[in-house]
Amino acid sequence: MRVITDRLIDKIKETGNPTVAGLDTRIDFLPESMRARLDGGEDIENALVEFNCGILDALKGIVPAIKIQSAYYEMYAHYGVRAMYRTAAHAVQNGFVVMADVKRNDIGATAEAYAAAYLGANGYDYITVNPYPGYDGIKPFVDSCVANDRGIFVLARMSNPSAAQLQNLIVDGEPLYMRVGALIEEWGGALVGENGYSAVGAVVGATSPEEARKLRERFKTVFFLVPGYGAQGGSGATAAAAFDANGNGAIVNNSRGIIAAYMTEKYKGMTYDKAARAAAVDMREDLANALKRR
Amino acid sequence: MRVITDRLIDKIKETGNPTVAGLDTRIDFLPESMRARLDGGEDIENALVEFNCGILDALKGIVPAIKIQSAYYEMYAHYGVRAMYRTAAHAVQNGFVVMADVKRNDIGATAEAYAAAYLGANGYDYITVNPYPGYDGIKPFVDSCVANDRGIFVLARMSNPSAAQLQNLIVDGEPLYMRVGALIEEWGGALVGENGYSAVGAVVGATSPEEARKLRERFKTVFFLVPGYGAQGGSGATAAAAFDANGNGAIVNNSRGIIAAYMTEKYKGMTYDKAARAAAVDMREDLANALKRR
Repeated sequence: MRVITDRLIDKIKETGNPTVAGLDTRIDFLPESMRARLDGGEDIENALVEFNCGILDALKGIVPAIKIQSAYYEMYAHYGVRAMYRTAAHAVQNGFVVMADVKRNDIGATAEAYAAAYLGANGYDYITVNPYPGYDGIKPFVDSCVANDRGIFVLARMSNPSAAQLQNLIVDGEPLYMRVGALIEEWGGALVGENGYSAVGAVVGATSPEEARKLRERFKTVFFLVPGYGAQGGSGATAAAAFDANGNGAIVNNSRGIIAAYMTEKYKGMTYDKAARAAAVDMREDLANALKRR
Repeated sequence: MRVITDRLIDKIKETGNPTVAGLDTRIDFLPESMRARLDGGEDIENALVEFNCGILDALKGIVPAIKIQSAYYEMYAHYGVRAMYRTAAHAVQNGFVVMADVKRNDIGATAEAYAAAYLGANGYDYITVNPYPGYDGIKPFVDSCVANDRGIFVLARMSNPSAAQLQNLIVDGEPLYMRVGALIEEWGGALVGENGYSAVGAVVGATSPEEARKLRERFKTVFFLVPGYGAQGGSGATAAAAFDANGNGAIVNNSRGIIAAYMTEKYKGMTYDKAARAAAVDMREDLANALKRR
């Protein structure tokens, strides 16, 4: 059986780069020229789309996937939401696997509405989901994965400093994130594809390599989306823990480090899109080296 | 000090009704006449707003607050989002306390964007928030509560059948929801208002009265938003556990039971708005009786 994660794995092999570029597009990441004439919501919408499309065109063939962080679009209400869908449409046209980082969660009936919104006909290849409501809040998303060949990444061990506050609490002698990992494996049990990974993945931060290693070791069919590389302190070396022995099983997100690379010393003088491409190429090398060194 | 929860409590006393009407507006709840000519997103947007405004006009003076379930609007992308904001504007004009049920959650920097979106100048009085990321994902929301006189309800013990799967796991001899309750109390510690309740509340389902009783007993400054009444199986009797000895400290949500009351046998023959009003009046009585009988 082929699932969406097989397509993602093919794309990763094609580009040789297990990186997902995060479009956490903030107005202050836009070059001066794009920021100059923002007069109201429609201008902001168009500027976000223009910036994102420039990034996408530059990253084509370099990264297999992009992840849109919904929060930065929801800030601009319906204009932002339209910018998000327009960005996704351009990404689909250009062959990227498209993830929406929405971290949605609710009781069953309402989760159905979210699943229809984000994994339906006009939806994304993958979205992120929060496990706190338990299975009946997850099932509608899993059902949509089956019906529409989509995938989800369920939060297991996040990358932020206080992630441990709940996620590392000890339950029956093991941290909560391991319990969540077991549930994620179970929830995706019927959706394991030809590469051995299911359409129900887990979010596992690059900032907690010990946790990533434990999760990787135990849950062999669960593909990992790995945030926290770069600005949050994760590196190729720490992210490497999320990969299996063959260097598969994970994709590492980098947002600011790619889309705002032109604002840093290292890529100074380059246009934002060229800098993004250079940063994505450098990250490909960093990850490849880290995986070799293990 | 006065916080948003004092305003909510005043409104509850004014109407004698600790009920929040949930605008989980689905197209199939709309009367035939409003559904007849839905040709694309703008028609849907206008129909949702027309229906909601009818409900709001009918509930004025009967319920103190309304809660908009974001999922049912996000289904219609930017059209739905605009319908949500337009509904909220009408609710504000008519003096309702306005909650947006968005269950947002993310790492700190991204939670800031969500807080700006939903608790900023054009935001809502309250939103719901998921605690899984821990404090740095909550802090931006709390900061917005302070800056803009807003409030949040953090998921503690939800109303859905599988809520117990994670929320009742035992941590240090106590269920996880009690640990989350303690965090919620701590997070709102500086925001306790003149009525003794803070702007950082908890979501506690009407379907689990035992859990509600334990949370109510221990966390005296935490105000509860109580979903699960009606369609999900909760009743006045089970919701009563969420209230303090004075009959304060909680507000009970009812969505379908109010906005789609006209579709049930009990309110048959009434228009949808009149039926909503009648159902809200009946719920007021049900809750008052349940609180008396304790």
